[in-house]
Amino acid sequence: MAHTFINQIEPGVTINDIYIVKDPILRSTTRGDLYIAMYLADRTGQLNGRMWQATEPIYRALPKPGFVHIQGRSELYQNNLQIIINNINVVDPAKVRIDDFLARTKKDQKQMFEEIKKTVSQIQNAQLKALTKAFLGDAELMEKFCNAPAAMKLHHDCIGGLLEHTHNMLRVAVAILPLYPNVQADLVLAGILLHDMGKTEELAYDMAFSYTDSGQLIGHINKTLLMLNQKADALRAKGTPIDPEVLDALGHIILSHHGAYEFGSPKLPATPEAFMVYYIDDLDAKINQVESAIDSEQSDANWTAWQNALQTRLYRKRLE
Amino acid sequence: MAHTFINQIEPGVTINDIYIVKDPILRSTTRGDLYIAMYLADRTGQLNGRMWQATEPIYRALPKPGFVHIQGRSELYQNNLQIIINNINVVDPAKVRIDDFLARTKKDQKQMFEEIKKTVSQIQNAQLKALTKAFLGDAELMEKFCNAPAAMKLHHDCIGGLLEHTHNMLRVAVAILPLYPNVQADLVLAGILLHDMGKTEELAYDMAFSYTDSGQLIGHINKTLLMLNQKADALRAKGTPIDPEVLDALGHIILSHHGAYEFGSPKLPATPEAFMVYYIDDLDAKINQVESAIDSEQSDANWTAWQNALQTRLYRKRLE
Amino acid sequence: MAHTFINQIEPGVTINDIYIVKDPILRSTTRGDLYIAMYLADRTGQLNGRMWQATEPIYRALPKPGFVHIQGRSELYQNNLQIIINNINVVDPAKVRIDDFLARTKKDQKQMFEEIKKTVSQIQNAQLKALTKAFLGDAELMEKFCNAPAAMKLHHDCIGGLLEHTHNMLRVAVAILPLYPNVQADLVLAGILLHDMGKTEELAYDMAFSYTDSGQLIGHINKTLLMLNQKADALRAKGTPIDPEVLDALGHIILSHHGAYEFGSPKLPATPEAFMVYYIDDLDAKINQVESAIDSEQSDANWTAWQNALQTRLYRKRLE
Amino acid sequence: MAHTFINQIEPGVTINDIYIVKDPILRSTTRGDLYIAMYLADRTGQLNGRMWQATEPIYRALPKPGFVHIQGRSELYQNNLQIIINNINVVDPAKVRIDDFLARTKKDQKQMFEEIKKTVSQIQNAQLKALTKAFLGDAELMEKFCNAPAAMKLHHDCIGGLLEHTHNMLRVAVAILPLYPNVQADLVLAGILLHDMGKTEELAYDMAFSYTDSGQLIGHINKTLLMLNQKADALRAKGTPIDPEVLDALGHIILSHHGAYEFGSPKLPATPEAFMVYYIDDLDAKINQVESAIDSEQSDANWTAWQNALQTRLYRKRLE
Amino acid sequence: MAHTFINQIEPGVTINDIYIVKDPILRSTTRGDLYIAMYLADRTGQLNGRMWQATEPIYRALPKPGFVHIQGRSELYQNNLQIIINNINVVDPAKVRIDDFLARTKKDQKQMFEEIKKTVSQIQNAQLKALTKAFLGDAELMEKFCNAPAAMKLHHDCIGGLLEHTHNMLRVAVAILPLYPNVQADLVLAGILLHDMGKTEELAYDMAFSYTDSGQLIGHINKTLLMLNQKADALRAKGTPIDPEVLDALGHIILSHHGAYEFGSPKLPATPEAFMVYYIDDLDAKINQVESAIDSEQSDANWTAWQNALQTRLYRKRLE
Amino acid sequence: MAHTFINQIEPGVTINDIYIVKDPILRSTTRGDLYIAMYLADRTGQLNGRMWQATEPIYRALPKPGFVHIQGRSELYQNNLQIIINNINVVDPAKVRIDDFLARTKKDQKQMFEEIKKTVSQIQNAQLKALTKAFLGDAELMEKFCNAPAAMKLHHDCIGGLLEHTHNMLRVAVAILPLYPNVQADLVLAGILLHDMGKTEELAYDMAFSYTDSGQLIGHINKTLLMLNQKADALRAKGTPIDPEVLDALGHIILSHHGAYEFGSPKLPATPEAFMVYYIDDLDAKINQVESAIDSEQSDANWTAWQNALQTRLYRKRLE
Repeated sequence: MAHTFINQIEPGVTINDIYIVKDPILRSTTRGDLYIAMYLADRTGQLNGRMWQATEPIYRALPKPGFVHIQGRSELYQNNLQIIINNINVVDPAKVRIDDFLARTKKDQKQMFEEIKKTVSQIQNAQLKALTKAFLGDAELMEKFCNAPAAMKLHHDCIGGLLEHTHNMLRVAVAILPLYPNVQADLVLAGILLHDMGKTEELAYDMAFSYTDSGQLIGHINKTLLMLNQKADALRAKGTPIDPEVLDALGHIILSHHGAYEFGSPKLPATPEAFMVYYIDDLDAKINQVESAIDSEQSDANWTAWQNALQTRLYRKRLE
Repeated sequence: MAHTFINQIEPGVTINDIYIVKDPILRSTTRGDLYIAMYLADRTGQLNGRMWQATEPIYRALPKPGFVHIQGRSELYQNNLQIIINNINVVDPAKVRIDDFLARTKKDQKQMFEEIKKTVSQIQNAQLKALTKAFLGDAELMEKFCNAPAAMKLHHDCIGGLLEHTHNMLRVAVAILPLYPNVQADLVLAGILLHDMGKTEELAYDMAFSYTDSGQLIGHINKTLLMLNQKADALRAKGTPIDPEVLDALGHIILSHHGAYEFGSPKLPATPEAFMVYYIDDLDAKINQVESAIDSEQSDANWTAWQNALQTRLYRKRLE
Repeated sequence: MAHTFINQIEPGVTINDIYIVKDPILRSTTRGDLYIAMYLADRTGQLNGRMWQATEPIYRALPKPGFVHIQGRSELYQNNLQIIINNINVVDPAKVRIDDFLARTKKDQKQMFEEIKKTVSQIQNAQLKALTKAFLGDAELMEKFCNAPAAMKLHHDCIGGLLEHTHNMLRVAVAILPLYPNVQADLVLAGILLHDMGKTEELAYDMAFSYTDSGQLIGHINKTLLMLNQKADALRAKGTPIDPEVLDALGHIILSHHGAYEFGSPKLPATPEAFMVYYIDDLDAKINQVESAIDSEQSDANWTAWQNALQTRLYRKRLE
Repeated sequence: MAHTFINQIEPGVTINDIYIVKDPILRSTTRGDLYIAMYLADRTGQLNGRMWQATEPIYRALPKPGFVHIQGRSELYQNNLQIIINNINVVDPAKVRIDDFLARTKKDQKQMFEEIKKTVSQIQNAQLKALTKAFLGDAELMEKFCNAPAAMKLHHDCIGGLLEHTHNMLRVAVAILPLYPNVQADLVLAGILLHDMGKTEELAYDMAFSYTDSGQLIGHINKTLLMLNQKADALRAKGTPIDPEVLDALGHIILSHHGAYEFGSPKLPATPEAFMVYYIDDLDAKINQVESAIDSEQSDANWTAWQNALQTRLYRKRLE
Repeated sequence: MAHTFINQIEPGVTINDIYIVKDPILRSTTRGDLYIAMYLADRTGQLNGRMWQATEPIYRALPKPGFVHIQGRSELYQNNLQIIINNINVVDPAKVRIDDFLARTKKDQKQMFEEIKKTVSQIQNAQLKALTKAFLGDAELMEKFCNAPAAMKLHHDCIGGLLEHTHNMLRVAVAILPLYPNVQADLVLAGILLHDMGKTEELAYDMAFSYTDSGQLIGHINKTLLMLNQKADALRAKGTPIDPEVLDALGHIILSHHGAYEFGSPKLPATPEAFMVYYIDDLDAKINQVESAIDSEQSDANWTAWQNALQTRLYRKRLE
Repeated sequence: MAHTFINQIEPGVTINDIYIVKDPILRSTTRGDLYIAMYLADRTGQLNGRMWQATEPIYRALPKPGFVHIQGRSELYQNNLQIIINNINVVDPAKVRIDDFLARTKKDQKQMFEEIKKTVSQIQNAQLKALTKAFLGDAELMEKFCNAPAAMKLHHDCIGGLLEHTHNMLRVAVAILPLYPNVQADLVLAGILLHDMGKTEELAYDMAFSYTDSGQLIGHINKTLLMLNQKADALRAKGTPIDPEVLDALGHIILSHHGAYEFGSPKLPATPEAFMVYYIDDLDAKINQVESAIDSEQSDANWTAWQNALQTRLYRKRLE
């Protein structure tokens, strides 16, 4: 049965579907009766939910947050839509169609990953080849890499967003590297493949996008550097030692790819390759961010709302 | 006769060549004799010059600065090389091989300009087509465009530098525009062609690179905006009016292409096209700047000197 | 009949007056009846309006935004005042008393404009005289100049605000120029007259103050520079060429009069005249802003609310 | 006998005049003979001095720094002028014409002080009248006030500079206060009179301009606040108590008159009067700084050297 | 009778207690009846209050703000708790238990003050001894010192907070001064004792924490400097003159103890003692701020809400 | 034989000692003779050296830089001291007394290391105990830890400087931790021990202090994080797994201990322990930096030269 999305619910209809419950609170009315207030959400938004005949065991059983099956009815209350809940049951996350709850890249994830592997296979330098192979051959990591978002919000904030962003950056690199023959292509391609790999550990995306504890304490840039060195340690243990110079050159690209201290890079770019990865990353992220901001508002106005991260409103109108 | 470059002069040799004289001063020795102190320069550097048997008429006749034919001799004085001048004569600038005095792009200027014309001819939008044609058909302006430097220093600071920079930006745009199908390609191509056109009026480059008065008071960004509107006025007078919306969209790209207020942009990018021109400009300028800084030092050290504009030293060593 | 201002409407009274309708939305109640929610506004504020017996044709006929004649009644709903609408009819803007909807300078606009013309007529330099005459003689432009606000908010945000601000700046200049005899008075007076002329194109003020598309894409500083050069082109066509040096000196004052890059000036002041115009502009704007902030709160407290643009609260109490 | 200024000394002439000796050092030649190296200075510059037949008692007797009478001869050494000293004798500072050593305002100090007193006498508020009278009647302080420079460098850096700057600020205030009738004129006039009074304690100017220890540890802004409160304490002791509100309003003007934290103001302007004093101070200082920078270079070039404090070069050329 | 705290009031209970009334407004219902809307507060929060049978005399008698005795009843209105008031009477502040309304340090104020006196008595330098004695012996001032908060919010924002903060800073100083033997301990101890003494005049704390007018106009840093100099003037009058050098060294510590211009210090630290006081102050304030932020949220989450002043969320989880 | 330090060489004495040769250049005189120009250095400074009878083999044999035995003579040339070299021979670094060339901490390195071990042994948490033991037991690393400088310049820039700085930080922590009972002492102690461990790889200090390539590309903060994780990997391999939470909490302290992005910390402090380590580090570094700056100038002046890193001059005078 197709999921009824939150932003499609009309007033006065019957509800019998799965949603995410968030922030449930047990309260009592002035008459002393218990009820539960909560939010019900999917990837299109959230609504207030009220269960009037509640008990403490029902409240305790609720995940905070988590998936629940709701039976009830929508109604308008003071001009706001809310859901009156008759029955609420916990749902096994394994049985949920995650795409109803998290936006997913519109591109073909499998095909993008194949194209990435093909592009990276062009690397000539033996050590960079070994390193990138070690990453691409780590099935568990690649599973995460293909599904992680590229960011919490702003750009590529969807399942597969990191994959899509990395894939497009590699395409840009392949297109422009011939125009800059002195830039070491192998380093740029390897740098792009790895640059945000730590986001697989920084971001959680099982029900909604959030930061992991470890992600907040350490950050994806430093996580990526650790992953790189652990892969190198593993290769050395298997008899394929990686030169410190190779690790430092690649590590430097990772550390400096935000381009400025205030954006969390502990090192500023100091090689042509580091500059190129930084610019390709920023270009691809910003174009995606601008197009998303323009598309996400349902409006015919020529200008979007103020974009705080860009310190401007965006102009939507195209030339005829 | 081939020019003897300043950085190739050995001590104790005869000098009989053309140089730029700069900052000449008439002084008297302790015995009361007059002499002229000056700098002699070409594109490889400058040396102190001394003319010991000087007169006020000789001093008055000197251009300040300008080209002069020098007869004299090099000598070491306190371990510094200087030129002792016996004869000094003003030279007609028209008879000077300017390439001895100003660095020139290593690429073929004619070919680059042809490729630019070809690329820009792909523009579909009729009004942008008319506008870019009006620029490309302005022979006097294109003469300047093909010879102006792209900057006083830092990047593409050579005769033909603006052409080379614009040419490469267009090549980058052509390579990556297919990857961003929602970005209006016509606007990006026209924006790149025009983005620094005002540098033809901001920078002087007859003997050395310098700013014009007008360039310092108004700046190349605003000069470019004025040129755009004057071309549109001329087209309107000829019966081809340009819509205000087209002028505003293109003008916005010009005004915002430095990407930040502190870099002299009075507007921040507010369209996908403005973001794309800004990133392609910055990428091409920075890669050129980094490679120039690495190449310009005669050193085997792994690191360049401190680069103030980049707030780092640059790493020169390549992977093997 | 006198207009009943929004901030004077009591609960429970009959409404029969003209207001601006903003953001009307057609909705249906839980019973399926259609109603229209909207804002009704004039220069003193806005209220929620509800038309319960609505139809789609009524909704479609509404301007978004625009002037409407309202018949209905005020009532308290959940302690908020709202208007229940029985009849709503579109009104021809030409028949509206615009002063009910936009604040207007308290000073005499005609007299201020005459004083400006008299002051500017003291300019001795022939070319600056011709340029300022060309502006003052452009009736269509002067009509806008006399009515435009000086800013969207913060200072002189009223009909005639630009005129009042320019008028007062000229008075300050006339008062202090004798104290700075080396500052070129003609340039200062011409610079002040023109400095914000582009606001006539940057801001719209037919019903409420807003930015035009062109204003947001190009900005008033650059618009003013374009106007200056177009006036000079027109004068040249009529046989009165303006020296580039005059245009550059005046253009520089316009470009640098915000005094800092982060306030949108693409050039920093580099002449005594540019510094003087910058300081007189900032002084007059800030004193107006401070006095407006102090006056606009209806409060006896010694301090105003926090002023974000000034990073302080303001002290209202005067010495006895 | 007229003083021979440092910048007028020709090579090979006899020297018999008073200069400031700075940084004398006793050294020995390779042969073991003692000599003293030192700088000799007046307000036009400084030269190297050498006394070849020196003894330790001669060295010990020298002030470091201080006034000395020099007998000797100028000579060119490696193209630099230096003074060979035969005799050197300490001079009583009381017998020195200080104007040979420190630049002095070109305006009439006595007349400026009289005009200041006249302007300040217009203050109506009794307490501000008493306070300003207490300052103007403090003969010892006024002696310093009439001679102190307004700054170490940049603007009004001459004997009488503080007086000239304060005098001109008061003239500006008198000229524009009628245009801002809601600004409390008494507070502005008193605020201007006092705003930099602490510079009399922050700066030393007996031989050259320098900071006092106390000036560096506490700063002139806070010194001025202390002076204000000490004058108020003295008035209270004499039976004329000053209301705390008056002291706070005036103190706030003093503390905030640099207009920004990074310029050493511990408070940002929060009253119209504080804003006005800040702008008049900055306007008068900057115009003086710009005109001084333009005049101080002996050059016909259109542009001055780079002005670091203003982040631009300055344009010297005037309209014809 | 124990006070019923705002955050403990249940719906539907009788209220008979003292609260602070804030922002009372007299309004009329749609039927024309008068009622008063207000906030009722204590140190745990605030609620809406409504008195339906109100008269203008009742409204006029209310303090704005002030203490009132309330008789009434709590109820839920649209899911928000509010107080329906039957009787309201003004209460003499002297009869109020202030601890119900303002948080108080959990440490023993008397004991802390005794420990401070003991620590400060170790000062050897006679003049610093005299100065600190003069402060500690000023009973009226010490009464305020023992009760003032250290800040409006963020850290030690409670009755006795300034005392607790100063006390702990002295303990830190005593602990680490032996590790820095070249730092002058007497100056550090005296500097800590005085560093925020001006907060006794900057902050008001009779009902809630707020700034005084004088505090906002002058600031606690400058107030402290004035207090120091007034105490020195008083000592001089009694025959114990304090050397200017001692006052300047101590005054410098006070002025620079925020460590940066943007935090309101008009001077940057220039002595080892000034650096030490700055670091001890910042360390103690920040640790208190971090621990308070972690403790004040009732949450089991690993992370606090975003802390704007620290530009991060805080991690609450401890190692096991 | 005792080394004759560079800053003790008098003119006209015989030189027969070991120095570091830096930047040797082979040049020819005007007569065509070859000579070598170079710097000769030890830890007290450097002088120009000239070897007039040079050959290309001699030049080629010189280390660039490295230790050499010099025979020659000092002389004054244009008032500057230089060394005229007769013989120059390469010296085996192993035979050099390194303390003549690099400053060394004045404290007992062995004793400091013992005290550090004792302090760290107080850690209770089993995993932190294991981790710190793993570091303290790594003899090769501890050898470097005991000798590395804490910084290139500014503070603790001497052999053993890192040890001295870490040792003193631990002493400060032990002194103040009892005053902050909620701060987890074990984390603070472990964090201090490790915080700058990566400097052993970032800085080279065999002849002079310099950055390693790896140090510049990766930085000591990230190097420390890698070392921490490698030690944890090794412990896990030996059967002592470290919880990710422990590694993250400790890693966060390392990453955030510079306290601000612009100082190279990719994370801002988010735990009480991270704040404490940041403050103790900054306090100890700054006090050392201030005292060193005051001591290092040989001057009786009350103020040091301008300290760019501190944006002030420092006041040297102590209270009597």
